[in-house]
Amino acid sequence: MLKLEEKKDAVAHEKHGPHGVNQKALRRLKNIEGQVKGIHRMVEQEKYCVDILTQISAVRAALKSVGIVILRRHIESCVSDAMQSGGAERVQIIDELMSILAKEEI
Amino acid sequence: MLKLEEKKDAVAHEKHGPHGVNQKALRRLKNIEGQVKGIHRMVEQEKYCVDILTQISAVRAALKSVGIVILRRHIESCVSDAMQSGGAERVQIIDELMSILAKEEI
Amino acid sequence: MLKLEEKKDAVAHEKHGPHGVNQKALRRLKNIEGQVKGIHRMVEQEKYCVDILTQISAVRAALKSVGIVILRRHIESCVSDAMQSGGAERVQIIDELMSILAKEEI
Amino acid sequence: MLKLEEKKDAVAHEKHGPHGVNQKALRRLKNIEGQVKGIHRMVEQEKYCVDILTQISAVRAALKSVGIVILRRHIESCVSDAMQSGGAERVQIIDELMSILAKEEI
Repeated sequence: MLKLEEKKDAVAHEKHGPHGVNQKALRRLKNIEGQVKGIHRMVEQEKYCVDILTQISAVRAALKSVGIVILRRHIESCVSDAMQSGGAERVQIIDELMSILAKEEI
Repeated sequence: MLKLEEKKDAVAHEKHGPHGVNQKALRRLKNIEGQVKGIHRMVEQEKYCVDILTQISAVRAALKSVGIVILRRHIESCVSDAMQSGGAERVQIIDELMSILAKEEI
Repeated sequence: MLKLEEKKDAVAHEKHGPHGVNQKALRRLKNIEGQVKGIHRMVEQEKYCVDILTQISAVRAALKSVGIVILRRHIESCVSDAMQSGGAERVQIIDELMSILAKEEI
Repeated sequence: MLKLEEKKDAVAHEKHGPHGVNQKALRRLKNIEGQVKGIHRMVEQEKYCVDILTQISAVRAALKSVGIVILRRHIESCVSDAMQSGGAERVQIIDELMSILAKEEI
């Protein structure tokens, strides 16, 4: 897998560079960091459990939406490139993609 | 809802105080904060998308497990108390609990 | 676990008998059965994948909502009874409940 | 969306015809139908709630795995074709794919 990943990393750098999608993900991750600190504070101050659970649920949803942004970029660049190259690389990148999508937590 | 919540908050403080469950949740939340920072760094450094997605998936699972810890405490204390008191409070706390459990993100 | 389950089964029969919640779950399950047959037909007729996925998603949501109906009944009857009885039974039923809630698929 | 879907339907028929993936999905859907009937019976006979919930959870997981089979086929055929054609069709099929993946229930 490493070889494919390294190649993809290189391809990503060449073709895309820092772009909009990235900045969007970074901003959201900063917010999520703040939200996690907020939950820590709520637990520390023994806030009502249901309010803490609601916050946890919100952060999980926010992480999912960052995942969707990253996944889109992956499909638009790496998956798209590998599909055009065909052969073993195409099979490998689809296998890899499906194993992510089969996870419960994405 | 506020009245019930306030009461529950008070009850939680009286009966439980800072305890084991809390410390466990706090430690995990500290870890999660570190993991979110790690994901931010990975996006910044344009790491391979699939590795970022794997990390996001891990953090979502970690948050879920904190939620389970909090939920257990809620059921053992607030829900249990309300069930014994019976009447309107019992119905209200079950309604509230079911509305959390119906959410996708818990 | 069996002894607790048998007891709960007996308790459920005595206390509740066939009631509204049940009928609601049964009607929904009939619908779900029809929906699953519909998906089978769509796959057989090679319908557009995205439409099939949309249907699968709808059936999964419908099953979740049946689960919520069943879960509510469980909390209102078995969990509530065990909480009032206290002791080992209380711990056991909460352990059992938490192990269901910790699953991804509920 | 309809025009794209119709084209994809046609493309699917031409290129793929009845194949292995399909048969796998059909067999699993037959099993799922049987499992849903089993849950109906369990509710009718007032079986222990936790056992019913465990079955619902199993069927939801089984539906997810059928979804993964269908999704893989979609990515291998329709998405792959659209990516090679490029242009508006490429954007459209990625938008459509992302809107499925963003759903909670897939």
